[in-house]
Amino acid sequence: MEVGLLWPIGGAGIIAMCFAIYYAHSIKQKSELPEKMNEIVQAIKLGAMTFLNREFKSLIFFVIAIAILLGLVIHPLTAGAFVFGAFCSALAGYLGMRAATSANGPTALEAQNSIGGALRIAFCGGSVLGFSVVGLGLLGLSVALFVLGQFLGGDVTKTIEVVAGFSFGASSVALFARVGGGIYTKAADVGADLVGKVEAGIPEDDPRNPAVVADNVGDNVGDIAGMGADLFESNVASIIGAMTIGVVSFGVAGATLPLMFAALGIFASILGTFFVRWRESKESSFQEQTQKARSALNRGTFITVGLTAIGGYFLVKWQINDVGVYFAALAGVIAGLIIGFITEYYTSDRNKPVKNIAESSQTGPAMTIISGLSVGLVSTALPIIVVAIAIFLAYHFGELFGIAMVAVGLLSSLGMILSVDGYGPITDNAAGIAEMASLGKETRERAEALDSVGNTTAAIGKGFAISSAAFTAFALFWAYAEVIKAKGYSITMSITEPNVLIGLFIGGMLPMLFCAMTLSAVGKAGFEMVSEVRRQFKTIKGLMEGKAKPDYRRCVDISTKRALREMILPGLLAVVSPILVGLILGPEALGGLLAGAVVTGFLLAVMMANAGGAWDNAKKYIEAGNLGGKGSENHKASVVGDTVGDPFKDTSGPSLNILIKLMSIVALVFAPLFL
Amino acid sequence: MEVGLLWPIGGAGIIAMCFAIYYAHSIKQKSELPEKMNEIVQAIKLGAMTFLNREFKSLIFFVIAIAILLGLVIHPLTAGAFVFGAFCSALAGYLGMRAATSANGPTALEAQNSIGGALRIAFCGGSVLGFSVVGLGLLGLSVALFVLGQFLGGDVTKTIEVVAGFSFGASSVALFARVGGGIYTKAADVGADLVGKVEAGIPEDDPRNPAVVADNVGDNVGDIAGMGADLFESNVASIIGAMTIGVVSFGVAGATLPLMFAALGIFASILGTFFVRWRESKESSFQEQTQKARSALNRGTFITVGLTAIGGYFLVKWQINDVGVYFAALAGVIAGLIIGFITEYYTSDRNKPVKNIAESSQTGPAMTIISGLSVGLVSTALPIIVVAIAIFLAYHFGELFGIAMVAVGLLSSLGMILSVDGYGPITDNAAGIAEMASLGKETRERAEALDSVGNTTAAIGKGFAISSAAFTAFALFWAYAEVIKAKGYSITMSITEPNVLIGLFIGGMLPMLFCAMTLSAVGKAGFEMVSEVRRQFKTIKGLMEGKAKPDYRRCVDISTKRALREMILPGLLAVVSPILVGLILGPEALGGLLAGAVVTGFLLAVMMANAGGAWDNAKKYIEAGNLGGKGSENHKASVVGDTVGDPFKDTSGPSLNILIKLMSIVALVFAPLFL
Repeated sequence: MEVGLLWPIGGAGIIAMCFAIYYAHSIKQKSELPEKMNEIVQAIKLGAMTFLNREFKSLIFFVIAIAILLGLVIHPLTAGAFVFGAFCSALAGYLGMRAATSANGPTALEAQNSIGGALRIAFCGGSVLGFSVVGLGLLGLSVALFVLGQFLGGDVTKTIEVVAGFSFGASSVALFARVGGGIYTKAADVGADLVGKVEAGIPEDDPRNPAVVADNVGDNVGDIAGMGADLFESNVASIIGAMTIGVVSFGVAGATLPLMFAALGIFASILGTFFVRWRESKESSFQEQTQKARSALNRGTFITVGLTAIGGYFLVKWQINDVGVYFAALAGVIAGLIIGFITEYYTSDRNKPVKNIAESSQTGPAMTIISGLSVGLVSTALPIIVVAIAIFLAYHFGELFGIAMVAVGLLSSLGMILSVDGYGPITDNAAGIAEMASLGKETRERAEALDSVGNTTAAIGKGFAISSAAFTAFALFWAYAEVIKAKGYSITMSITEPNVLIGLFIGGMLPMLFCAMTLSAVGKAGFEMVSEVRRQFKTIKGLMEGKAKPDYRRCVDISTKRALREMILPGLLAVVSPILVGLILGPEALGGLLAGAVVTGFLLAVMMANAGGAWDNAKKYIEAGNLGGKGSENHKASVVGDTVGDPFKDTSGPSLNILIKLMSIVALVFAPLFL
Repeated sequence: MEVGLLWPIGGAGIIAMCFAIYYAHSIKQKSELPEKMNEIVQAIKLGAMTFLNREFKSLIFFVIAIAILLGLVIHPLTAGAFVFGAFCSALAGYLGMRAATSANGPTALEAQNSIGGALRIAFCGGSVLGFSVVGLGLLGLSVALFVLGQFLGGDVTKTIEVVAGFSFGASSVALFARVGGGIYTKAADVGADLVGKVEAGIPEDDPRNPAVVADNVGDNVGDIAGMGADLFESNVASIIGAMTIGVVSFGVAGATLPLMFAALGIFASILGTFFVRWRESKESSFQEQTQKARSALNRGTFITVGLTAIGGYFLVKWQINDVGVYFAALAGVIAGLIIGFITEYYTSDRNKPVKNIAESSQTGPAMTIISGLSVGLVSTALPIIVVAIAIFLAYHFGELFGIAMVAVGLLSSLGMILSVDGYGPITDNAAGIAEMASLGKETRERAEALDSVGNTTAAIGKGFAISSAAFTAFALFWAYAEVIKAKGYSITMSITEPNVLIGLFIGGMLPMLFCAMTLSAVGKAGFEMVSEVRRQFKTIKGLMEGKAKPDYRRCVDISTKRALREMILPGLLAVVSPILVGLILGPEALGGLLAGAVVTGFLLAVMMANAGGAWDNAKKYIEAGNLGGKGSENHKASVVGDTVGDPFKDTSGPSLNILIKLMSIVALVFAPLFL
């Protein structure tokens, strides 16, 4: 690619990184903590970093193996791009996690004084994640494009084909972070809840619970590193998918537009963060403060989205002068928001679905499960219709390039969305630390109020992650079809061809198999954790009386080991099956496989996220004093629903995002092999 | 069609009907029962017939409405075929249900003496269902083809196009019988179990339980009428789908081959039934007798399957002299058996999956649910691969006609399979009657042994129903594509076309929405039933002491009304959505919709059937004395799993068979409208 075009894009990435570093620095200044608190914070940080280190170690073998394969069968430069992509994604995750585990303590400390101050610190922590992800994504991509362009003598089409390796590298990290992290967090959670809360009867986040540190580490591992890697991948892959199609439709201008859109989003996100603050008054009530915190976060998001929506118009007009493509990107922006609101509707306890689940708990746990599953299933209808309309409009206005730009439009506000999303687990941790360090009831309540503020934003974030995964997979799917076509190989992926239909069937089945694997991984890891926690309660004398300390490290170890072991099989499935189908049944069948996987993958992901969220909030609704409140039979039934929902919404559901993107990028990268 | 060809085919149908009548008569001779028993039997019969009558009444409105629509927008003859198809299917269901509710009492009575005698009666009852379904199917189809041929002046292609209405009529009845019946049976079951067994602590089938009659009626409504109508539809639709393609590939000989294959299957089934008997000796033990009963049923099935497999070769050779098509049909025969065995593997308590679920009950109900779901999800992998291989081979050997013949081959042994399958609910009822009429522990044990024999055969039957639905839907899908092509309209259903992909997405979502609707229907109906049973226990004095009688009729009423009301919405969804998508987005998108619906529909159906079966048997495994046995905490957890699994395996799962076939037949019938 031409250097002149890449400078401003890489520059936007550098600016984002500067902001990330600035935020990280501002957290560091506040990290002097009282000793007891510091001890806990260090334990969580150590646990989280231990997991990351081990994850990276296993990752290295994986990356080397794939890089060799790529170098041999595809192109040595693809292998290089792959390694570099993996490095950038891993670095973004590392920075985000470091910041999050540094921000949780100060957030808890500040919560002693004010909600606003605590929110600010937690949001800073989230912003490090957000801006590292978008910054390293765009910077890394620019560097990769520049270097590859030098090697390939300025051949834009070839450069874009090879740079797909960068996205594949990011995908690999996402696989480890999202799937491994998801297993980690729920194994710890199950162990902490089932033995600590249910059997021993001690409260959530009680320091006597041996799994409590692992549980708090899990929030960071799953929701920070996992979420970050997931969206790093979406961002990079959607850009590359759109570039692949854009260069065919509009030449170099079409190839640079997606990059510029992302750069625009970075500036909009930076501006947006300035609006996440407000004038605090000492007199305002608890409710008022919480409400203001909520408004501040929403304000930031809407301003960012608004700015990209307006700026995008001029950008598209200037670059390719085709307003239709702009409407396509706008469709993505709007679709993401709508799916977020739908998610909120089905999972908030102010609405009928969650209330129905809570009421069905009166006829026992079985009916709670059935009604939750039914809510999850029914909640797939509207998002599918939104996706269908978005595709329809995007194609109508912008043809193929329009469809690819839907994902780019949706992801342009990623910096802001991820900052808000990262704020959630930090306040969750802060609430835990407040409890463990005995900071008093009021502080914990403030931290929990902040946590609950994150619920709405988390719903939007989840809808965002799922829909971006689906749209990104689409972009990659069409990019794959374009690449096959560009090689002069004419294929018709008609579903009346038996091979395509067979691909569709196998593709449709893979998400189910993947879910089964991740669900049973949580089951197995959870079982081991439960045994360990039970053992510690039995053998460590004085533990229940608070005289002896539990062995937190052992629990962290179990989660770490199990998570990394149990993710191998689903990971292999995701990488190997598209290659096998492509080789054995041909590129048409592989196209069918991708389409089938996106369909059931998206449906299952929405179903699991929403069922899980709805069960969670049905339990909270009862805990808030409805239908008998805490300790009642109804409550017990709702706890069963919540426990089933946990791996749904935090392990299997989000892992599906990775599966559908990873399979698509594997298809795109290995496409030349199948011809 | 030519009269000469239709005579032997219609004749086979008549012979099947003769056998059905003969078996019905032989049951009638044994139906003199002791008074107390007769009372119960009459109550069940009355309940079942009441449901059928009301169902038919609602059906009439539906049938008239659709017939008018068909007459106006498609063809008056299609409307006529539609009405006639509905009539034939309804009649088959009526005869099967009558026989089943007549055979349950005598089976219980005979169980006082011998297992073999009881099996024979129950099998006779099942055979009435089996032979009515295949007999009326083939006879009705021949008459329809003959009459339509007269009207259409011998235009074979047009005749086949119009006769699709016959299949659509059968589908409509199946919708009412399977979906309505499924809701009926589980509402009654939930009410009987949750209040009777759990709250009041009385045993299963206790006459003091107000919902006990409704529960036993439900077995007939769901497993006899529902299963019968489901497979009547599969049988007829697969034949019509294959005829549509066959006439294009091989002319009239290709059109008659599927009919002849079905006729061959009738003779093979009749021969097979003769082998379901054995020499009984008074000295043989309980176990030996049970084992012999099991072998007898399996022998009958295998002989039938073997005979069709051998006879089919000569038939295909003689008719069209293309052995490839025979291999395609054979692939269907084998695929059905293998899927049956896979089903048995995942749901039998002798294997790991069920044992794992039972063991996970040690960590409570939530883990029981998670591990059951995980078994259900993982169990989709092998059947999908079997289906993929069958399609691949069928196309390889027999091209498009081969694919259509897979379903015909699979369904050729339907008469026998359904006879064996119908035997299950009859012995289930017999066991209930033995308990209610206090026939003593030994009789009940014998009846339950017979019931347990039915488990293996039921697994094969379920795999058979699901796979036949999928293959039938395929045949209809390709028939739809052929009809569109034959109209001179050239369409490419390429998944790279956005419209096709949109159709795929919407189609993939519909089974999920459909499941959500049927699940919540069971929830609502069950809730009402629970309230009614609780009310009766509270207000009827002396009920628990056995001095007063419960009001069985009220419970039957609730199930009936609720079932018919709650099936309207899912039914409309199935009929309206393909028409809407075809009209708005065009025939390509409708093709995508069908493919998407078959993929997720099949996956969900397998998942739900197997998860439900596995939970059921995990509970039975614990009840057999493992892991603490009855009454333990583990047992309670397993009961939660079983209760969740009930609507999975008996309502939502089987209803999906109807959904995917009904949508395909709607597309086929209304195809001319979308061009």
